Order: sequence, then C-alpha cells, then structure tokens
Amino acid sequence: MTTFAEIAPQLEHQAIEVPSWAYGNSGTRFKVFGSPGTPRTVEEKIDDAAAVHRFTGLAPKVALHIPWDMVDDFGALTRYAKDAGIEIGTINSNTFQDDDYKLGGLTHHDPAIRQKAVDHHLECIEVMGATGSRDLKIWLADGSNYPGQADIRARQAWLAESLATIHAQLSNDQRLVLEYKIFEPAFYHTDVPDWGTALVHVQALGDNAVVCLDTGHHAPSTNVEFIVAQLLRLGKLGSFDFNSRNYADDDLIVGSADPFQLFRILFEVIRGGGYGPDSEVAFMLDQCHNIEKKIPGQIRSVLNVQEMTARALLVDRQALAAAQQAGDVLGAHQVFMDAFYTDVRADLAAWRESRGLPGDPMAAYAASGYQEKIEADRVGGTQMSW
Amino acid sequence: MTTFAEIAPQLEHQAIEVPSWAYGNSGTRFKVFGSPGTPRTVEEKIDDAAAVHRFTGLAPKVALHIPWDMVDDFGALTRYAKDAGIEIGTINSNTFQDDDYKLGGLTHHDPAIRQKAVDHHLECIEVMGATGSRDLKIWLADGSNYPGQADIRARQAWLAESLATIHAQLSNDQRLVLEYKIFEPAFYHTDVPDWGTALVHVQALGDNAVVCLDTGHHAPSTNVEFIVAQLLRLGKLGSFDFNSRNYADDDLIVGSADPFQLFRILFEVIRGGGYGPDSEVAFMLDQCHNIEKKIPGQIRSVLNVQEMTARALLVDRQALAAAQQAGDVLGAHQVFMDAFYTDVRADLAAWRESRGLPGDPMAAYAASGYQEKIEADRVGGTQMSW
Amino acid sequence: MTTFAEIAPQLEHQAIEVPSWAYGNSGTRFKVFGSPGTPRTVEEKIDDAAAVHRFTGLAPKVALHIPWDMVDDFGALTRYAKDAGIEIGTINSNTFQDDDYKLGGLTHHDPAIRQKAVDHHLECIEVMGATGSRDLKIWLADGSNYPGQADIRARQAWLAESLATIHAQLSNDQRLVLEYKIFEPAFYHTDVPDWGTALVHVQALGDNAVVCLDTGHHAPSTNVEFIVAQLLRLGKLGSFDFNSRNYADDDLIVGSADPFQLFRILFEVIRGGGYGPDSEVAFMLDQCHNIEKKIPGQIRSVLNVQEMTARALLVDRQALAAAQQAGDVLGAHQVFMDAFYTDVRADLAAWRESRGLPGDPMAAYAASGYQEKIEADRVGGTQMSW
Amino acid sequence: MTTFAEIAPQLEHQAIEVPSWAYGNSGTRFKVFGSPGTPRTVEEKIDDAAAVHRFTGLAPKVALHIPWDMVDDFGALTRYAKDAGIEIGTINSNTFQDDDYKLGGLTHHDPAIRQKAVDHHLECIEVMGATGSRDLKIWLADGSNYPGQADIRARQAWLAESLATIHAQLSNDQRLVLEYKIFEPAFYHTDVPDWGTALVHVQALGDNAVVCLDTGHHAPSTNVEFIVAQLLRLGKLGSFDFNSRNYADDDLIVGSADPFQLFRILFEVIRGGGYGPDSEVAFMLDQCHNIEKKIPGQIRSVLNVQEMTARALLVDRQALAAAQQAGDVLGAHQVFMDAFYTDVRADLAAWRESRGLPGDPMAAYAASGYQEKIEADRVGGTQMSW
Repeated sequence: MTTFAEIAPQLEHQAIEVPSWAYGNSGTRFKVFGSPGTPRTVEEKIDDAAAVHRFTGLAPKVALHIPWDMVDDFGALTRYAKDAGIEIGTINSNTFQDDDYKLGGLTHHDPAIRQKAVDHHLECIEVMGATGSRDLKIWLADGSNYPGQADIRARQAWLAESLATIHAQLSNDQRLVLEYKIFEPAFYHTDVPDWGTALVHVQALGDNAVVCLDTGHHAPSTNVEFIVAQLLRLGKLGSFDFNSRNYADDDLIVGSADPFQLFRILFEVIRGGGYGPDSEVAFMLDQCHNIEKKIPGQIRSVLNVQEMTARALLVDRQALAAAQQAGDVLGAHQVFMDAFYTDVRADLAAWRESRGLPGDPMAAYAASGYQEKIEADRVGGTQMSW
Repeated sequence: MTTFAEIAPQLEHQAIEVPSWAYGNSGTRFKVFGSPGTPRTVEEKIDDAAAVHRFTGLAPKVALHIPWDMVDDFGALTRYAKDAGIEIGTINSNTFQDDDYKLGGLTHHDPAIRQKAVDHHLECIEVMGATGSRDLKIWLADGSNYPGQADIRARQAWLAESLATIHAQLSNDQRLVLEYKIFEPAFYHTDVPDWGTALVHVQALGDNAVVCLDTGHHAPSTNVEFIVAQLLRLGKLGSFDFNSRNYADDDLIVGSADPFQLFRILFEVIRGGGYGPDSEVAFMLDQCHNIEKKIPGQIRSVLNVQEMTARALLVDRQALAAAQQAGDVLGAHQVFMDAFYTDVRADLAAWRESRGLPGDPMAAYAASGYQEKIEADRVGGTQMSW
Repeated sequence: MTTFAEIAPQLEHQAIEVPSWAYGNSGTRFKVFGSPGTPRTVEEKIDDAAAVHRFTGLAPKVALHIPWDMVDDFGALTRYAKDAGIEIGTINSNTFQDDDYKLGGLTHHDPAIRQKAVDHHLECIEVMGATGSRDLKIWLADGSNYPGQADIRARQAWLAESLATIHAQLSNDQRLVLEYKIFEPAFYHTDVPDWGTALVHVQALGDNAVVCLDTGHHAPSTNVEFIVAQLLRLGKLGSFDFNSRNYADDDLIVGSADPFQLFRILFEVIRGGGYGPDSEVAFMLDQCHNIEKKIPGQIRSVLNVQEMTARALLVDRQALAAAQQAGDVLGAHQVFMDAFYTDVRADLAAWRESRGLPGDPMAAYAASGYQEKIEADRVGGTQMSW
Repeated sequence: MTTFAEIAPQLEHQAIEVPSWAYGNSGTRFKVFGSPGTPRTVEEKIDDAAAVHRFTGLAPKVALHIPWDMVDDFGALTRYAKDAGIEIGTINSNTFQDDDYKLGGLTHHDPAIRQKAVDHHLECIEVMGATGSRDLKIWLADGSNYPGQADIRARQAWLAESLATIHAQLSNDQRLVLEYKIFEPAFYHTDVPDWGTALVHVQALGDNAVVCLDTGHHAPSTNVEFIVAQLLRLGKLGSFDFNSRNYADDDLIVGSADPFQLFRILFEVIRGGGYGPDSEVAFMLDQCHNIEKKIPGQIRSVLNVQEMTARALLVDRQALAAAQQAGDVLGAHQVFMDAFYTDVRADLAAWRESRGLPGDPMAAYAASGYQEKIEADRVGGTQMSW
C-alpha cells in the first residue's frame, strides 16, 4: 500500500490555472444571472483569482481571454497580477462574438474574414509577449447548422492555412494549443470536433503545437482517459480544460458530476508522465458558475483536482501491474478502486496547514470576509460577463 | 398504392402555430447575432407571422410568450392579428428569466417564489381570456446543477401543488399543456425531464391537462414516435413543439437534421388520430434561427412539415397491415419506405397553386420585397430577442 | 455529522437477491467464454449463490429464470436451497429464446403466439406457488428492427391484454413486476422502452403490479435517481436490477463504472422509503461476468452495494435540508459529497466480523478453497449458460 | 439541376462487397435464430452472394472471414466463386473467438498470446495470396471491462508492435485496413475506439495501411460524414463497412435507420474523390440479418446504397458552391435537400433494365424460386453462423 506520506511531496508540483472569465457572470442561452460582488474590471478578476490562490496554494496563474480581458497596458496588468501574488497564464483567443464570425472565423469561406480572424490571433501573440505567456489557446466556434450549408472539406484546408500563418508568428518557446469540441455553438458540423482532427492539425504545424483536452467536449460515453493516454503517448497533450458534464458541455465544477472519471483521468496523466516538474502539460479550469458563488466555486474546483490527484497518486502501481500481468481482472480492479475509496481529506488538511495554508479553504474563505467586502465595494459599473 | 390526389383533401386540415419569438433574435450562450429587419415590437412579430401564413397557407396562428409579448391591451393585439390574417394561439409562460427563479419557479424551495411563479401563470390565464387562446403551455426551466443541491422529491410535491393551483383557474375549454425536457438550463436534474413525469402530473390534474412533446427534448437515441403513439393512446398528447436536433436541444429547422424521423412521427400522429378536424392536438414550431434568415426559416419549416405530412399520408396502410400480419419484415418496411421516398414536391406545388397560394413559397417570399422592406423600415428601436 | 455507529443498525436490513444465471456462462454476441467450475445443474447454481451469502451475509435469496432453471420438483429445489442456507426469490420469465418469439411474445401480432407467451407466464406462476416466491418479473425482449415492420400502437393494446390475463392469475400477495429497457435485442422500437410505459401498464393492472428498474436500461445521460424518486413517490417501484454500464446494457459489476451514481441512487432509495424493514422494494443483481470469475464477481457486487448503502446512510440529512432551504448550492453539495467520500471499508470490516462474517469476504473466499473445489469437481456435463 | 441521365454513367462504377457471414445465422447475445435455407458450407455462402450479384449487378465480390470461411484449398474456392460469377474480396481476421483471446489478442499482456494473434494474421495473408485479395481487414475486439483491469497505454505499444509485424508481411499492392469501434465486446475501454487511434497506427505503418470506417461504430451523435471527409483529405480512408444503427452497433440494413445520413456520407465520399474508377476506397456491407431473410436483406442493402449514391450524385454542386460562397444558409441547404428528395427509383429501374438486370431486384428474387430451392435443398448439416 502506498501511503499519504509517500505521495505528499508530489503534491507540491500541483498548479492549476484559473480562467479570468470564471469570476464574471455566465449562464445559459436562457438567462445570465448576475450576483453582487462580480468584477467590473480585469483587475478585479485578478483580485479574485489571487484570492483563490491565497486560500489554496493551488492556483498560481490566471488565464486571460482576449478581447474580454483587453487592457491598454499588459505590462502594467502583469505587474498588477504579480503584486497580487499570481501570474498571467494562457492567452485565449475569441472568434465567436464579432458579427463577422457568424459563419466562421479561421475557417470562413471569405478570405477577408479568415484574415481578420488570423489578425486577432496575431494580436493575442502580442499580448503574450507583454505578459510572458507561453500558450496561445485556440478554441474555434466554427461550424455549420445545416447539411449543405458549408463546405466541410474546404474548411479543413482553410483552417490548416490559417493555423500555419498564426503558428509562424510564435517563438520556439511559445506554444499553439488547439482545442476540440464536438458541438455548440454549431449544431450540425464543427470544424475541430474531436481529438483526431486537433491532432492532425497540430502534427502539421510542428513540435510546439499541441492539443487541449476539455473534459466536457466529447460525445456521450466517450472514454476520456483513453484519449489522455493516447495524446501523452504521442507527445501531443498540451493542456486540460477541466470541468464536468452530465449532458453536453455543461461546464460544471470539475469532479462534481463523475468523480471517478476525474480519478481515472488523473491516473493516466500521472502514469503517462503528464504530471510533475518535468511535464509541460498545463492544467486549467474552464467552468461556468451559473448559479453558485464564483470564488468558492473555483476554490471547490481546485480542491477537487487536488484531492483526486492525491487518490490517483495512491494507486499501488506495483500491485496493479502484478495483477494486470496475472490476468486477474477483479484483483487489478480492486487495487485501482482501493486508491479511489481512500479518504484523503484529513491528510490533505494537515498537509495544507503544515504549509501555512488553511486546512479547510472553503471554510477559511467563508470566514475571511472577502466575499462581503467585494459585495459591498463593487457597486456601480458594469459586471463583467461573457 | 395511395395517390397524391387521394390524400390531398386531408392536407387542408393542416395548421401549424408559429412562435412569436422565432422572429426575434436568438442564439447560443456564446453569442446572439442580430440582423436587419428584426421586429422591435410585438406587432412587428405578428406582421412577420402573418407573412409566413400568406405565403404558405399553413400558419394561421401565432403563439405568444409572456412576458416577452406583454402588451397593455391584448384585445387590441388580437384585433391587430386578425386584421393581419391570423389569430393568437397558445400562451407560453416564462419562469426562467427573473432573478428570483435562479433556483426554481413552480418547484422552488421557498413558497414565496412558488407563489410568484403561480401568479405569473394566473396572469397568463388572464391574457388567454383576452386573446381567446385555448392553451396555456408550461415549460419549466426548473432543476439543479449539483447532486445534493436540491430535494428532488420534495420538488415533485411542490410542482404538483403549483400546477393544481394554476389548473384550478382554467375554464373547461381551456387546457394546461405541460412540456418536458431532459436538460438545459439545468445540468444535473430537471424537474420535468421526461414524458413519464409530465404524464403523471397531467393525469393528476384532469382531462384538460395534457402533455407537450418537443421533438428536441429527449435523450440521445430515444424513439420519439413511440412516445407519440403512447401519448395518443392515452389521450394525453396535447401539442407538439417541432424542431430538430443533432446533439442537444439544438432548435434547428424541423426536418433538417433527420427527415425520416419527422416522417415516422407524422405517421404515428396520423394513424393514432392526432391529425385532422377531429383531433385536438396542436402543432407548433419552436425553433431558433441563429444564423439563417428568420421568416424564410419559418416558411421552410412549415413546408417541411407539410411535405412530410403528405408522405406520411401516402403510406399504403392496407398493404402495410397485410405485411405486418404476415410477419414479412422486409415487405412491411418497404411499404413504409416507399411512401417516404415518394417525391411530393411537384404535386404540392400544383396543389398550392390551385388554392391561390404560390407554388414555391420560398421563391415567392424572396421575390416579394417583404424582406427588403422590413430591413429598410425597421431601423432604430431595440430588436426583440429572448 | 452522522457516524458509522449510528447507521450500522440499518445495515442489518440489507438483502440482495442474486440471479441464478450469474453463475452460468454469459458473454456477448461475439463469444461466450467458458471457465472451469461453472455449474452444470440448477443445484450447483444454488450452491454458488449460497456461497456468496455465506461469505457476505448479504444475499439470502436466489432469483430463478424459467426455463433455464426448470426442474421437475420445485418443492425439492426449495428445500435444497433452504438446506444450503438461502431461499428462492423472484421468478423471471423468458419469452425470447423460443423460435416462435422471433417477432414478439406478449405483443406478437399472432394471437396464438401471444397465448403461448401468456401460458409460459402462467407456468411461472405455478413455479411461484411451489417456491413461495412473491414476485413474477417480466422483461420483454419484444420490439422491432425496422420502421414499418410492426404496428407499434396495436402492440401496446396486445401487451395490455396479455398482462391483464397473467395478472389475473396472481394472488393478492404476489406481485407482477414489469421491467423496461430502451433497446436490445430489438434495435428500432422496444415495446416497454421506458419507465413511463412500464408505469402506464402497471397502473392499469392494480396495486400489486409494480415496476422493475434495471440500472443499465436507460438512454445515455438519463438521470436514474430521479426515476427512483419518482417511482417511489408513486408507490410503484417494485424492484431493482443492479449492474453498471458505460455504453449500453453492459451488465458490468454494480458500482464499477460510476460509483457516484450508485451512491445517488441509494440515497434516493433511502430518503424515499425504499430501504429497510417496511419497504417492499426488492434489490437484485442482474449482471454478466463475461471475463471475471463469477462467484467473486457476485461477492464484489453485493459488497459494493453494501458499501455504498453505508455511505448513503451517512448523509447528514439535517444539514443537507438546512443548506437546501438556504439556497446554499455549494454547501448542500458539500454535505452530500462528504458522505460519498467517507471511507467506510474499515468500519464495515469490523462490523462484519462482529457478526461472525469475514471482514474481507473477497480474501476469505479466495482462501476458502471453494473455487478450487468446484473447478476440480465440476468436470464433465454441460456448463449452464444463457 | 443535374439530371439522372447525366449521372447514370457514374453508377456503373458501383461495386459493393458483401460479407460471407451475412448469409449465415446471426443474432444477439440473447438468441441466434436459425432459418430454413441457411448455408452449411462456405460454397453455399458463395452461392448466395453470387445470387445477390445476379439480381443487382452491384455485388461482384464476397468478403471472407477467417476462420469462419477456412477451407483446405483456397485456390479451388476462388475458382468456385469465379464460376458463380463473383470474386473473393477482403480477408477479415478473427481474434475474438478463441479462449486465449479472452483478455485481448494483438494487445494481450502475454507476448505468447500476441504472437498467436499475429500468426493468425500471417495465416490470413497466406489466404490472400491464394485468393488474390488486396485487403487484410483487422477489427480488434480487444479492450477491458473494468477500470484498472488493463494497462491502457502499454497495450497501445503492444498493438503498434503487433501491427508492424503483420504489415511487414504484406506486399506493396496489398493493404492493411484497420477498423475502429467505440465499444463491444469490451465495455470499459477498447484498444482502437476511434478514427484518431486507427489513424495514428496506420500512419506509423506506411502508405498501404489505411482505415476502415464502419458506420455503426461511433458514439451517439457523432458526425460520421465529417470523418469521411477528413480521412479522404488525409488519403487514409481505406474502406467502409456499411450498416445502420439507432442505439449501438445494431448492424441493421444500411439506410434503414437514417437514410439522410447515408446520403450525407455518400456526398462526402463523392466530392472527396472516394467514388469512381480512380478511387481505392472499398465499399462493403457488414450487417446482421437477425430477423429478416438474409438474401433479400442483402439485396435491399446494396439497392439502398445505389439509390442513395444516385441522389448524392444529383446534388447540383455548382449551385451548392455558389450558395455556400454567398453565405446563403437556407439556399445551400435547399440545393442539398433537393437532391435528397428526388425520387430516383423509377429511373434506376429503367437503367437496370437497360443493362439486362431486373428493374425490381427484390421482386425478381422473390419470383425466382431461389429461396424456395435453398430451403428445400439445404436440409441436414449444420447451419453456419458466427
């Protein structure tokens, strides 16, 4: 049996980027609910991200979304973040909210629109220069709603061309991270619907182009940990967007819908070399707190990842391999489940306290007065949202 | 073989309600695109609905959504519609856009919010009195996002109570129509997720409570025509919300994603007594034209229903029954497919012309100048949307 | 916080029927693998079921399947079981393996086949008389593979008639338990595909007709615990067939695919009055051990149910209700998860030992020599299978 | 508008391989039904395949499955087929019915079993030499049922190694065709679950390694025509296994569940260069006729492919491209649907007759007496089946 003490040192490597947009309002097509204390500025989002890190020690970086987080001076913003105790992480582009992108961006049939979408990414690369970000993450909303509407195949060629132009502007230590998603906002075809398509495109680009796996972007009943293992095997797993789902891209708190799936994913990450100081895989949240409080929602999320990482580290890999080699189906499964069913919460609390962090970050945040303060202070202005 | 001439008389009974909200802007959580010519007032929506009827002869009623279509004088609005050549149809309630409904409406744990939601429905019943509408359609957005968040079972009791209070205010010739939906906007549990739950509630209310079947509201791989047949058998199919889907509640143009499914549904409607002058089943569209033009989108939709109704009427039911009774699997299937593969478009065009309608309503609309006129006229003001 | 000591007394009520067919060979359409020690007779199946009970104290009954378990003298078989330490439980009928049932049984278009299927059930009722069984469980394989092949609606009427005839032969203390399943072996329509259809039929029959919920028989992304809550509310949840699934009706070991789902189901069972001495809900396994050893597979399964029942009992329902009433989304969710993440394994082992049972039934079985004995003894004859 | 006369010449290129196993008995895990006239020998299967070709002109080749179709003298079998008017096509391997393959074949943790599975493929390659077959099709049943049971990632490496050994034995004009499938018979993980995994492996092998797309092997709601377009773009679409599905791998008659999907797939095939004399894409059926007659089931299937190919050829690609370039969503969709709704049946019948084939192959087969003859002749012996 592996013990908590044995795995504790590995927990120090854990770092999960939080998305700036998690602190703004989000919702469904039916309604976006507002709530008191929601940030009105990019700086206020950074304050909230920094709070999550302060209470958990798990979230040293905040990912930005352009143009939602556009500011005049990214150097100043980077310093602002540093003063708050965190760094700017991944830069996310957006080619889905400008009217011109109604029928596509990087894949649009009109070269002028494609150029506009490419230019937006070049602008993002400039932001990366100013913030010191390593990763440009590209999620395409591109697709079509009706059979016949679009030339599915030509769009693949246009996409390849657009990505190559963008990729050419990256330095060698920057990465292009391409995200896939089965559907939404397009409802018939999506231009990068699956990991196979993302892989094909990043393989064409080069070593510093990799795939982003969003845990909510698959067809029902997809075995996600298999994809994790496969992308790690190919050296092409760039980053995770963590969240959870019951139906579609629900963007719920990671680990809340199917905790065992999160365990299985993290086990494949660890055994495949995707975790730890030598790995370049980035871990990120991408969630929507439609009805729950945003900052506690983020704290809960990073804690869920941490707790499940601890359980995944606890798998007795020697015993597992022995049972697998013996063809002992139930024995191997039991070794696996034993780790999942181990209650790591008390050990983690003690470990956190030993590092000067609150043992119970949720309770500590609730007791801190931060929420009351922002609700009182952030009056007037326009709450930020998608 | 059944011929078009034989079934043509039955086509006269076809009437499909169009939703007022189809003419306003709609979209996804990522973006709602606007477009020139979008109505700014309820009256302009009615103008557009009337245009659809003028070109097709298929859409004599427009369904309203309260409060989106709230006006001071529903008597005047009813006359306005009549002057435009159509009538007011179903009244749809809305308990998902007020901040109070964040955690539920008719099922909320707080009795005060439940009362507010009930009161909203009583207001809708008043509107029905003024417009002469028969149906109050209730779609609940109620549900929860996280296991444990809500008391799933208590909410069923609260829902039953709320519905009973509303139902008690209806006259005998008015109907309560309860719609079900598997998910969205709630992502863990939904309070009326399936036809079984809707049935249980309307059975408890009485004869004038019935179920609305939205074709996009089911789990993947659900056999929808079976539900149609079952609800008709039980006398509880109240109405349809037609649209189509590939993934979730995509709200695409009816018949665009899986035309054969529409055929199978309409066949069960017809054979089950849900079509024709003696049936009380209401046919409605409930779609979102996120990227296509709205009025042609509605014209296309009612034409799709008409074309598929014609095909479904063409099934040689005698030959089908004979093959079924003989256990001739392939033979029965072929009788069924023969009707589906029959091209009714030319016959329908001729039939339309014989009734003073354009043979090709899509082309006629495009040539009419209506679109150009509304794009020119409807400048300024605020475009209506969800 | 609820403690294990507080809930331990409630664990005494737990009893899970094991199916006789779990000890025979099963597989997929591609291959049924045999294995040494597989029973050749009904008595050997009962021996194996008794072994599961001896090691766990959880499985006091074995369900039979007619005609797989047909014997000349059911009185003798009942005594045989009693001597082995268990009882005969539910009687399951089979109308899917006789050539006559190719196109249906209780729903067949030919009245003679329907009568044959009805007669088979009357024979099952006779068996119930001899074994003292309370429940007649009916799972229908009936359906069709091609649109048009069958008269979906007429088959509902035939089914209602067939069930009424069968039900009329039951005594008041016997129950008809109707099971639903979305698909397989029929691939276009199934005659009892969902809980709504099962409900409609048992409601028509009377108080002693109830629904069986097989956890693997739903469409992807169905919220199963909602159905549990709904059927309990309606007084119509008769029994469970436990197993787990990732894709279709995979019939894997219960709790192995999504342990959290099992937790949620058991929580709704408990809070809805479906667990304990006053409940008439029957708990059963219905699984296939295609590749793992059968007896340990059953031991693992009943242990999984027991462990998850303990966790579900541990939910602090007072704290949960308070958080729900306060609209505290994250707080209520956390109360729920706290119980799920509690490691009950050591407490359960101690509790088992205090009752004269092995603390680790899996290890005890492996050490017992039973497996080696049956592998050595059961040579020759024909292994039983589906 | 494109006319039937314009596209008719392209129909001459159509050739669809039928599988030898379609003529034997097949079923579900619940029951395999037999029927009179089922072949008892490989030669009788070839007779049936030849009958399908005789009535349709569409099925000039029969695919074999080893060891189901193992004979002593494949040279003789090849001549037998030639005399019957057809050729031997693809050779399919089988590593799922030997007891040794319970936990895997080409991916098994035991090198001896892997070697055995490799050797089986080398034997298949010998058969190819004797029959003159171009394609070795590999579908793996390999996978696991329980998390932890198997080393998902190591199995990828073992698979790569096994495939390389097999591939090395192929000549340059032979192809290795790797098929993927999401699940069944494995229910937790499958070793080649998706097109991305198949692609990764065939890319590693070389130019004469390609992917087989079985239309029933995807997760629910997968856009299959997108995968077709993508694989054609990459030059890696080797062959199709046609069938249709509503739920899982139902193996129903192609075009019976969703005819519009078949249309969309064939449109992408044609526009992507996968159809016609210059294409190397192989078209095959892979279906199970569980309840319908087998030979008419195959005739119906190849006719469905032919009819839908004709409709797909009828798409006015110039008008489509113009509407797509104009961003005319509804216009482009209508061009597409116009072809789908065109009734080609009468034109096809005339075209068949002009080539000396029966206009209505289903009726001609029924009238031919072939079925009655085989039912009378094939008495005694053992019916072939999976």
